[in-house]
Amino acid sequence: MHAITIPEPGGPEALVWHEVPDPVPGEGEVLVEVAASAVNRADILQRQGFYNPPPGASPYPGLECSGRITALGAGVAGWAVGDEVCALLSGGGYAEKVAVPAGQLLPVPQGVGLQHAAALPEVTCTVWSNVFMIAHLRPGETLLVHGGSSGIGTMAIQLAKAVGAKVAVTAGTEEKLERCAELGADILINYRDQDFVEEVRKATDGAGADVILDNMGAKYLDRNVRTLAVNGRLAIIGLQGGAKGELNIGALLTKRAAISATSLRARPLDEKAAIVAAVREHVWPLLAAGHVRPVVDRELPMHEASAAHRLVEESGHVGKVLLTTS
Amino acid sequence: MHAITIPEPGGPEALVWHEVPDPVPGEGEVLVEVAASAVNRADILQRQGFYNPPPGASPYPGLECSGRITALGAGVAGWAVGDEVCALLSGGGYAEKVAVPAGQLLPVPQGVGLQHAAALPEVTCTVWSNVFMIAHLRPGETLLVHGGSSGIGTMAIQLAKAVGAKVAVTAGTEEKLERCAELGADILINYRDQDFVEEVRKATDGAGADVILDNMGAKYLDRNVRTLAVNGRLAIIGLQGGAKGELNIGALLTKRAAISATSLRARPLDEKAAIVAAVREHVWPLLAAGHVRPVVDRELPMHEASAAHRLVEESGHVGKVLLTTS
Repeated sequence: MHAITIPEPGGPEALVWHEVPDPVPGEGEVLVEVAASAVNRADILQRQGFYNPPPGASPYPGLECSGRITALGAGVAGWAVGDEVCALLSGGGYAEKVAVPAGQLLPVPQGVGLQHAAALPEVTCTVWSNVFMIAHLRPGETLLVHGGSSGIGTMAIQLAKAVGAKVAVTAGTEEKLERCAELGADILINYRDQDFVEEVRKATDGAGADVILDNMGAKYLDRNVRTLAVNGRLAIIGLQGGAKGELNIGALLTKRAAISATSLRARPLDEKAAIVAAVREHVWPLLAAGHVRPVVDRELPMHEASAAHRLVEESGHVGKVLLTTS
Repeated sequence: MHAITIPEPGGPEALVWHEVPDPVPGEGEVLVEVAASAVNRADILQRQGFYNPPPGASPYPGLECSGRITALGAGVAGWAVGDEVCALLSGGGYAEKVAVPAGQLLPVPQGVGLQHAAALPEVTCTVWSNVFMIAHLRPGETLLVHGGSSGIGTMAIQLAKAVGAKVAVTAGTEEKLERCAELGADILINYRDQDFVEEVRKATDGAGADVILDNMGAKYLDRNVRTLAVNGRLAIIGLQGGAKGELNIGALLTKRAAISATSLRARPLDEKAAIVAAVREHVWPLLAAGHVRPVVDRELPMHEASAAHRLVEESGHVGKVLLTTS
């Protein structure tokens, strides 16, 4: 088969479409013929040499895919050859075939095309596990989503609205904020010329955000804590603004607030399977009913992964950038 | 009645036993004739002028008491005049009488004396709400308790052992550590000459602490994060080591860990009542069965509150220092 390899870490050009050995599904795994994968920030870090795959993972990038099952490893129940699926991966999605633990498979939801389904696993699992399983966003509460027009952001807006929450978003252009509004966002904040602490305060009668989904880490830490409501929960899923920052524990204590920080990729199989099962139970019906949909900016051929990375690094996209095999 | 008043904030001598008007129980409150109260760190901050009572609270210090109900306000069900109780207070425990919201009352547990019951409300409610309701300590997990010989610490050790957890404690003298061991602590760390990060790592085969109960805030923040296990939870309940500190969000994210910070006093009535109800359900049977007991360092007459504050400020005590009315 062919896969995107990284002979030497570096810029987008470091991604090379190359012939490699086919993967072999181990016990409890299936082999998927990939229809599409999608670009995640972690792929860019991996390409740059800053995020090595965890032990046992494929050396090729790609944390999610869609496609058809072509073989079953030993001990796999509930799936059959020919099933159309999408999957959360610990790597290897940028390839024509990938071996996937069965616990990380999801059926292609009703009403979603096979390629577009590749846009779903990372964003649904990340948003569901952080905003709902960890931070317990409840109906009537306010969620602040940083980077509202990103893949994660567009899914977070839709899921939060689907459960009856109010949604505030930050983004860097009016066009992106407009797209967030189309998805249901109630409070639109242009971080280039507005202070999100102040804007959220004004829009919530001084109460603040009950849950914040943050990808900026250190750069936003203090402002996020100031934005939290009493009993607020800050869920950090990225460190795009740095890894170390001053925490005002006194403010946190006065608000009885909490901070969590997680990544999906490093979780052990059983935790991933639990998240995937929860997503199938809670998110898949919303997709099938059309209340939530994958937001795809564009699809590029997988061998043009370099161009896709450039696009994502320039942050001009809204939603997910897909890499298709045909 | 008499109460300890604070005519001017200051040192222990600022506490003055003085005649004051009797409190009147409002709707949903009962009047308690106080048998004993107990000293908390927050009382010292209040005496120093750094921690004003929340709106509506008694101006006198004292966050817990035991005693007998002498009158019922309108709308109180489930309690009768003459009942022996202990109670979580938002203030006013250093007095001969105090008005208490019914949701903050607990019966004196079987096997515990009326005065000793005053040692229970703050520590049981703080430990249960933080270690169990927020941080979800589970059997087989490891809890690290800073200040293991404090009132909070002695209760945290006992409750964690009662649910089948392993307990590590820090304290400043071998004598205090010995008392922690008698209560069940498994891992004893003298913070004056041992590094708790290293000691917990060694004692857990490198895994770290699943839950940390911390009263130091900024001073221990980085070391606490380093001590956390994967999926670990740091519960901060005090800021004795400062309110602002550098947080290594990258380390938190790698461990998929969480930090919470709470105080009991500022919670609204319904949250306090929910905690008190959970404590009555889960902790009171352990007290009645003798698996858990109040740890009382000594009892002083309430009008000698100044001496009791000096004792607690010198940190020579183990467990709670009580103030009795007779």
